[in-house]
Amino acid sequence: MKHNYLNNLPLDAAREIFLSAADEIGFTAAEETVPSAAALGRSLARAVYAAISSPHYNASAMDGIAVNAADTFGASERTPVLLAPSQYIPVDTGDPLPDGTDAVVMVEDVIDDASGSVTLRAAAAPWQNVRQVGEDICMGDMIAPTGTVVTPALIGAFLAGGVTRVPVKKRPLFGIIPTGDEIVPPTAEPKKGEIIESNSAVFSAMLSGWGAQAKVYGIVKDKKELLAAALDTALEECDAALLLAGSSAGRDDYTSEVIASRGAVLVHGIGIKPGKPAVLGTAKGKPAVGLPGYPVSAVVVMEQFIKPLIDRYYGRKAQPDETVEATLGRKLTSSLKYQEFVRVSLGCAGGEFACMPLSGGAGVITSLTKADGILEIPQNCEGLEAGAHVNVRLLRDAREIENALIVTGSHDPIIDELADLLQRAGCGFRVKSSHVGSMGAVHAVRAGQAHMGAIHLLDGETGTYNEHILREYFPNGGAVLIKGVKRVQGFMVQKGNPAGVRGLADLKRVRYVNRQRGAGTRVLLDHLLKRSGVSPREVNGYSNEKFTHTAVAAAVAAGNADVGLGIYSAAKMYGLDFIPLCDEEYDFLVASAYADHPHVQAFFNMLRGEAFRARLEEMGGYRIGSPSDE
Amino acid sequence: MKHNYLNNLPLDAAREIFLSAADEIGFTAAEETVPSAAALGRSLARAVYAAISSPHYNASAMDGIAVNAADTFGASERTPVLLAPSQYIPVDTGDPLPDGTDAVVMVEDVIDDASGSVTLRAAAAPWQNVRQVGEDICMGDMIAPTGTVVTPALIGAFLAGGVTRVPVKKRPLFGIIPTGDEIVPPTAEPKKGEIIESNSAVFSAMLSGWGAQAKVYGIVKDKKELLAAALDTALEECDAALLLAGSSAGRDDYTSEVIASRGAVLVHGIGIKPGKPAVLGTAKGKPAVGLPGYPVSAVVVMEQFIKPLIDRYYGRKAQPDETVEATLGRKLTSSLKYQEFVRVSLGCAGGEFACMPLSGGAGVITSLTKADGILEIPQNCEGLEAGAHVNVRLLRDAREIENALIVTGSHDPIIDELADLLQRAGCGFRVKSSHVGSMGAVHAVRAGQAHMGAIHLLDGETGTYNEHILREYFPNGGAVLIKGVKRVQGFMVQKGNPAGVRGLADLKRVRYVNRQRGAGTRVLLDHLLKRSGVSPREVNGYSNEKFTHTAVAAAVAAGNADVGLGIYSAAKMYGLDFIPLCDEEYDFLVASAYADHPHVQAFFNMLRGEAFRARLEEMGGYRIGSPSDE
Repeated sequence: MKHNYLNNLPLDAAREIFLSAADEIGFTAAEETVPSAAALGRSLARAVYAAISSPHYNASAMDGIAVNAADTFGASERTPVLLAPSQYIPVDTGDPLPDGTDAVVMVEDVIDDASGSVTLRAAAAPWQNVRQVGEDICMGDMIAPTGTVVTPALIGAFLAGGVTRVPVKKRPLFGIIPTGDEIVPPTAEPKKGEIIESNSAVFSAMLSGWGAQAKVYGIVKDKKELLAAALDTALEECDAALLLAGSSAGRDDYTSEVIASRGAVLVHGIGIKPGKPAVLGTAKGKPAVGLPGYPVSAVVVMEQFIKPLIDRYYGRKAQPDETVEATLGRKLTSSLKYQEFVRVSLGCAGGEFACMPLSGGAGVITSLTKADGILEIPQNCEGLEAGAHVNVRLLRDAREIENALIVTGSHDPIIDELADLLQRAGCGFRVKSSHVGSMGAVHAVRAGQAHMGAIHLLDGETGTYNEHILREYFPNGGAVLIKGVKRVQGFMVQKGNPAGVRGLADLKRVRYVNRQRGAGTRVLLDHLLKRSGVSPREVNGYSNEKFTHTAVAAAVAAGNADVGLGIYSAAKMYGLDFIPLCDEEYDFLVASAYADHPHVQAFFNMLRGEAFRARLEEMGGYRIGSPSDE
Repeated sequence: MKHNYLNNLPLDAAREIFLSAADEIGFTAAEETVPSAAALGRSLARAVYAAISSPHYNASAMDGIAVNAADTFGASERTPVLLAPSQYIPVDTGDPLPDGTDAVVMVEDVIDDASGSVTLRAAAAPWQNVRQVGEDICMGDMIAPTGTVVTPALIGAFLAGGVTRVPVKKRPLFGIIPTGDEIVPPTAEPKKGEIIESNSAVFSAMLSGWGAQAKVYGIVKDKKELLAAALDTALEECDAALLLAGSSAGRDDYTSEVIASRGAVLVHGIGIKPGKPAVLGTAKGKPAVGLPGYPVSAVVVMEQFIKPLIDRYYGRKAQPDETVEATLGRKLTSSLKYQEFVRVSLGCAGGEFACMPLSGGAGVITSLTKADGILEIPQNCEGLEAGAHVNVRLLRDAREIENALIVTGSHDPIIDELADLLQRAGCGFRVKSSHVGSMGAVHAVRAGQAHMGAIHLLDGETGTYNEHILREYFPNGGAVLIKGVKRVQGFMVQKGNPAGVRGLADLKRVRYVNRQRGAGTRVLLDHLLKRSGVSPREVNGYSNEKFTHTAVAAAVAAGNADVGLGIYSAAKMYGLDFIPLCDEEYDFLVASAYADHPHVQAFFNMLRGEAFRARLEEMGGYRIGSPSDE
């Protein structure tokens, strides 16, 4: 076997090398026999033939009498036929047809006689009302060929055909070895510097979806002997081994060294992003793979190498991926060195799919939970322009994406709460929210990319909220403003306000954490700064941007900043002190075309309801109602 | 609760009554807590919020040194900055950022000094190369709302957010009670009159696919007290009960009586076909349903009532069914009384879907295993004309149907064997075969409904096989003939030939079992009869038609007939004696448009291969090669 220590091998070449090696070492499904009733979803290792016919005897299909049809020939209304007691036998549905009979006359057509004879006013045709042997399945017929995935109906056919156990392909067992000094098992109370080991659970779940099984080993410290011993055990007990790197640099080489000591490293470094540092090899005649530590990188490597490996094991062709064509929402630059896998959000407000790359590096697992699809950018491509037509591989059912209510704009936890309440009520659609800030919402609604946008934009001149947006951005209509909630904005500071924040002027002195450009809260800050005569350039931390209120609160709570501007509920959640600055109106800009949309209606009905009011009270800092309520 | 003893209630009304009753008795999901790692595919009972941020501390994203960015301001190539040992701390990727630092300079950019000081030639921006607290997930953020189905990535997000256990909706447990005196557990050796109980396994598998669980009880004899006791146990231990009727008439009323004694029968008799005799009720505050005995009927009732019941339990809307538009291949008559569910086969040879109703009554489970979709015909519709455009609900992935190789025509087990060999070789497509006879194949190929057809048609005038078809039916081209196998046709008779069949003339005396009109074997019989001067009307059993060679063999083996015409391999399979009559040529008529189709090529490559030759030898009665080989 050749060693291919390469640093940036193109994906297809790397996969070809890896899968060929898997073929060479005979990584193919062994066979096992399972009860037919327990075979759901399994793949047949061989064709299954019926052991008996079904029905396996001639069965009456009616309640009535079994007769020899020949005895009834000529019977009609005018020329009834009389059958002596010896010429017929009463039968119920399902009864075997008695010897010497070949037809059943249903009980309604039989005229009883006191003597025990019966009269028939119609002739019976041979085999009428009889389920003949093999009507459903004939003994020896192939019920299903090799490779068939067992369905509920097939289970019924197996059992009806007398096949109580079926040969299926064994599920390959993957040994998963998490490694790293700083890695700890899942906990709600990790110590500083401890990294929660979540990857093994993610990969186990992925493997199970692909028809494989996982055995997760204990976390191995960063010692070569320990790693080698763990690999030996996994290769002993499993069909393949996956070594999960921690996130430390240099760890991958370590994995590579250990795999090489037990076999061969075939590929180290693949021209994909994320996922580059993967190690593909074989050890002791079994596939052995080192996965990168960042979850998103590792998921890409799992999909691009381990899924095809399992397909190869089962001897099945991969189902072509489901894709949709979508319009790219913003420019995307890409490295010429890598084939990139970009997680994207898909929206379908206007009947066509629009796709927006999700932010976050390879360490951000929520970029995967939020993703609706993956956009692949080929190696040697510099990127894509906004508006480009792209094919997106779907991670969710297209109908679910088409049916989603798209709420974009300013972040507030109440959007998630409303989404949850709608789900609890069984609304039947997803609420897809994204945090693009209030101005982002205005643009998205104008572009028809969202059903509605959440905004809280102060009109510095009038001191009113949001209404000026209709005038300025929708002078000819196209959107309506629906009142949402009133909420308190203020400074979030650490408990006891150790930095002594009193007002805007303090931002020149203490460390501030800001919101992103376009966020309503950023617009508010700028307005307040201007009023106070403080220049943004004077604010210490103006460029430290967060996308949500909770992210700002988290930064203050962690001591990364002394103060941030945000809503009361976020401060409360993090046990921060809160200095109220102003009440603001958090409203919804709804595209006119969707004002009557049933999802939009459902959203606002929930917003006006008792359940939501109760949640607001729990969260604190909100009121429902328009300013005129005051 | 109202009792609605109705005989033919429309489906929608019946479902509405049943589901409303389920609401009334509070048939909704309870909650349980499971480890996050074991929650794959489960539905969240409540929203899940992050317990901790991820990262939960400021982590270095690089190997390098942690610094206070302010100490580096002004550093450039021309004005390097020197940091004293007290001004920096070496860190590895993942390490917590030490107190007093707010940036990391990567090791490559650090110039060591013999004194322990380091030189920087670029300023560090605050928070550069730092994964700040909450970069991925902020404590308190909603990770997923109620009802979300847990994916692998979500498991990762839960664990990263410090959520080690999640609240999920309990899976409803259905107690399944098979009933009937003649019903026996699955076996390969049932006695005459015994009916194999396969339905409980089929329904358990269906339930598991819908997120429910099943507990199958022992078979209950036809005694009211026993049935009542079994129902009591099931209602005690489970969330709902399904009573599986045997096939005897009158059994359903029995189920109905027992359900009524424990609660209320809401509906008895639904205007659907198959599925009419279902019993829908509640007993002891839980759903209790009597399912018809025939598997296909019961499957329809499961899909139309139990699946929506489970959706209601979970508080989720049913996913809209995936459908395709197809052209109906033959006229379909329908009863005005019933909404009909017709199992159909779908083909896509010409790029458009063609749909053909499958034969077989409600007792024929193989009509379900063969079905690609379900065609619903509304109540009050008399039927549909051939060529009608219909919407078919898919039972299989549309891409799998589109990608299938369609081989229609004359039956021979070798088609199944070739399909199996292709699957073993990992061909990546299904072989879809249907038995429409040789003449059916000719018409299907002409109509573009099949890639190829299997034919064995004797030209009575020349004594040659199949070639005249090209001249007669494809005078202007459009098809090519590809040689298949030679096979022996003859009389299949019981062991020792007790009926003393010697030749065609005997068919007037003994009981014959025939093939369907259009079958090549039927054409052959007619040819032989004509040559022998025997009229079809003189043949005893001419109208007893079977669709396959094995069905003919099964009929002879069961004693339903004394003789049938068919191929040697079928006789051998059933241990019958065989009287050879002639060698014939079983060839393939391939539509010219598909002659170069890769699936077609793969099929013929397999046909010419060693593996297939070995199988033919095992089966007996075949040779590969054209007549000129002789």
